[in-house]
Formats: sequence, C-alpha cells, structure tokens
Amino acid sequence: MKYCSECGHPVTNRVPEGDNRPRYVCDQCQTIHYRNPNIIAGTLPVWEDKVLLCKRAIEPRYGTWTLPAGFMELGETMEQAALRESEEEACANVAIDDIYTLISLPHVNQVYVLYRARLLDLDFCAGDESLEVRLFSEAEIPWQQLAFRTIHYTLEKYFSDRLLGHFSIYTHTINTNNRAPQEKEPVSS
Amino acid sequence: MKYCSECGHPVTNRVPEGDNRPRYVCDQCQTIHYRNPNIIAGTLPVWEDKVLLCKRAIEPRYGTWTLPAGFMELGETMEQAALRESEEEACANVAIDDIYTLISLPHVNQVYVLYRARLLDLDFCAGDESLEVRLFSEAEIPWQQLAFRTIHYTLEKYFSDRLLGHFSIYTHTINTNNRAPQEKEPVSS
Ligand SMILES: [Zn+2]
Ligand SMILES: [Zn+2]
Repeated sequence: MKYCSECGHPVTNRVPEGDNRPRYVCDQCQTIHYRNPNIIAGTLPVWEDKVLLCKRAIEPRYGTWTLPAGFMELGETMEQAALRESEEEACANVAIDDIYTLISLPHVNQVYVLYRARLLDLDFCAGDESLEVRLFSEAEIPWQQLAFRTIHYTLEKYFSDRLLGHFSIYTHTINTNNRAPQEKEPVSS
Repeated sequence: MKYCSECGHPVTNRVPEGDNRPRYVCDQCQTIHYRNPNIIAGTLPVWEDKVLLCKRAIEPRYGTWTLPAGFMELGETMEQAALRESEEEACANVAIDDIYTLISLPHVNQVYVLYRARLLDLDFCAGDESLEVRLFSEAEIPWQQLAFRTIHYTLEKYFSDRLLGHFSIYTHTINTNNRAPQEKEPVSS
C-alpha cells in the first residue's frame, strides 16, 4: 500500500496512537488502513466411496489436483462461499454435512475452512478454473500431484476418519509453503 | 475505496474480465483491489463454574459485557489471535481447549471464531479496551447487558452443553444487527 484509498494522499507506515503495531495511516484524512487475513472456503465432495477433485487450470499449481475452494466474498456466509466455489470450479451440486478442517497459514495470511459435503448427482463438470474434474477412490488419489498441503492434510484426515467410522473437526496450522510435497508423506497417527 | 492504493489513480467499480462480480479496478496500473470478510477471534475463558466477561470501554456497545475477542491480525494463526485478544482485553492467561462457535455475519462481512479456554490463574485485569473484567456464574450472567448476539449465542450454547456434559462445535449465521437483544431470549432447544 502506497496511497490512501479514500483520498489518494501518500500513506505512512507507523503505529497509530493507542495501537501496538504498524498500520498504513493517512495523515491527510486520518484514515487507518487495516489489513487482515483472508478466508478460503471449500468442500470435500463425496460420492459413495469416492471424493471429487479438480485439476487446476490456473496458477499457482497449474495442472495439479485440488478440492473446490476459493476466497470468501463480501456478503457471504462461510457455507455459501464453500457451495459457490464447488459450483464454480466443479459445476458440483453438493450439500454440506459438517465443517471439517480449519487451517491457519500465518505466513500467507490465509485461513482455510473446508466442509465435508455430499455430491447430490453426477452432473459435475470442469468450471473455468479447472482442466478436469473427476471422482477418486482412496487408492486412486494422486498424492504426488496434489496442489496444496491444506488439501493433502484434509484428504489424509478424511480417509483416516472414514476408516475409524467417525469424523472429527480439525484445527491445524501450516507455516511452511502451502505447496504440497511431491513425495507422499506418511499419514500422521 | 476511491483511489488505487498502489498508484494513487482514481479506481472504477466494474466486473473484471473473467470475473463475475464488481471489483475496484485501477485502469492506470491494472491492479484489481479485492475485499474480503474479516475474522474476529476470541475465547470463552472458564474458571471452575464461572466464565470471564469484559465490560467494554470502547464503542460500539460501550459499557456492555463481552467475551475477549477482536480482529485477527496479519501473520497470526486463529489460536494466536484468540490468545492475544484475551491478554489485551482481560490480561487473561488462558489455555485453549477447543474451537467452539464459528459464526458468519454476512451483512457486516465478519466471521467470529470463538474457542473454549481454561483460565490458568486469577491474575486477570481490565485491559485498555475494558472498564472491568470479572467472573460470572451462569446465574449471574448479565443477559440483558451483553454486547453482541454472537456472545449471547456462544454463552447460551456453553451453559446448555455444560448441562449435557458434552461440548459440540457450532457453525451458525447471524444476519441481523449483531447488537444483543435487551430482553433475554429463550435458550434455543
Ligand atoms: Zn486519506
Ligand atoms: Zn493503480
């Protein structure tokens, strides 16, 4: 940020009175410009013993596989954002079962909120941001071509919980690069 | 938003190519200025059969009671934000037990994330944004002087779950004014 979005005057970076951290402050119109982390909402769509993944048609991680998820927009609930992203990226008609993983990524100022969801029909298709959308059984999951650690973590938990017959809700932190490892990591116990 | 924060040129509000909703766009430097909802993180600090509330020393809702909570900052996890707010508003030394309520407020572009927490000692005190901080038993909760619906909802769930002997995790939407009702509403079943 270099200029005040309210008056166009150059901003300065300093700790405002009564605050304890630096903000972009406008000395012309006195606006304090706060910046805050963003929420990425999405679903883990399930059909019988399979889960739906999307092959990314956009950077970052073009050509790798991910769950339908994206930035929550103004005026939405988290569930509406998750459903909208499922529709936009996978043309997927899903119903949310429950919240599943909440993952903080402090180094990139993001929070992932992913829901377990039921795919309601098989009329899914690749949206504008996907090259391909398809169902994968656990054995078919392309662990070495997943887009993000957040997706890797969520799928690991899902298959582990499914085996146990009970789904928990997980809060987790990832503070390294969110790019998924190329080699499959062992499932954490 | 009236001016581009990158180059100071006036912005226009229009749907960018390949997008489906209006954004503030700079025709000078081509920056698209996305705006997204904010996370408010906090705790429900418990000591024996009592919970800790803070009397607000700031607007909105000056003089009403709330749980320690505030805007998540850049570079934080949700848990770090919740702990920091507990320290800043109530000088409270707490340990997080589990995530508890996740509440979308789409009309004000906020998401509340509140954690159940244990108060580790009784050295709490009023921080800069609090007039007073004290412990309340269920019978003492000032239901008619609570600051926000999000706090009202979370406390109702807490006392109801405590009676059942089991704490769930709740996702909820509030799309009216977040100001708490003055009359106590019946506890939802
Ligand atoms: Zn200004
Ligand atoms: Zn610009």
